[in-house]
Amino acid sequence: MPAPFAPPENFAMVWRGIYRSSYPSKRNFSYLQALGLRTIVYLCHEEYPELNCAFMLEHGVQLLQFGCDGNKAPFHEIPAYVIRRALRAIMDPRNHPVLIHCNQGKHRTGCLVGCLRKVQQWSLVAIFEEYRRFAGTKARVVDELFIERFTFEGSSDMDTGI
Amino acid sequence: MPAPFAPPENFAMVWRGIYRSSYPSKRNFSYLQALGLRTIVYLCHEEYPELNCAFMLEHGVQLLQFGCDGNKAPFHEIPAYVIRRALRAIMDPRNHPVLIHCNQGKHRTGCLVGCLRKVQQWSLVAIFEEYRRFAGTKARVVDELFIERFTFEGSSDMDTGI
Repeated sequence: MPAPFAPPENFAMVWRGIYRSSYPSKRNFSYLQALGLRTIVYLCHEEYPELNCAFMLEHGVQLLQFGCDGNKAPFHEIPAYVIRRALRAIMDPRNHPVLIHCNQGKHRTGCLVGCLRKVQQWSLVAIFEEYRRFAGTKARVVDELFIERFTFEGSSDMDTGI
Repeated sequence: MPAPFAPPENFAMVWRGIYRSSYPSKRNFSYLQALGLRTIVYLCHEEYPELNCAFMLEHGVQLLQFGCDGNKAPFHEIPAYVIRRALRAIMDPRNHPVLIHCNQGKHRTGCLVGCLRKVQQWSLVAIFEEYRRFAGTKARVVDELFIERFTFEGSSDMDTGI
């Protein structure tokens, strides 16, 4: 019997063609390969590891990096335009199947998915319930504030060169 | 602006055409309608509420009931054949899109989804991680034991009239 698949921690299907997870490592590659990924949307600033790049090159997966730091009270807030750009990328079927990830798949990924749910017109109650399901005891009120205040179609996009 | 959608608690997309949740009520109907459900797979013994039946009749949704009690140590175990039958139903694309639910969307639904993940060849570590994400502090070791021991293709099916 072949070894079972090892999806990364916090892996889930978000919607048709859209997955989320924590940072994938070598032991997860066979599963990512089985998903037939076309794109990885990566939300950290750090350079992508060589091993992961080699995997993507071999399997024709493109990397779209939208580097940001997570929301941290009271001083740092994710720039909304970064999340808007990432949203456009994950909503574009030409990029599907796409895997979204940051480090733990909790905060930055949770914010991006939360903002997608706003576009899908989910109630905030349902959005926060899902956010907390992945963030667990590490849930951040500042992330929920970010999601509540986020707008997708906004003139503020104009200020950021989108 | 129309009222936002209210997915039921513990709602998630499990896989293409397969959703899971807690028991849906009237306030969730507009969301279920938007999903364009064809089937509800219902894992409790109790009769389905009149209001939910009326919604299903109106929107052409079929009810497939696989009634069982949850695993409770030390005396009760979900009959594996019930989960096998439910698995066949959710894996049949003719029933998609399908929503699986029990009461809280934690235990019986978590067992059925866990067994689906075995068919999808997920490692037990990943299966249990997902199970606990939905069960939270109510996670049951007996459910994890059930999932670990479950087999889909088994001669024991013969004993149960499948």
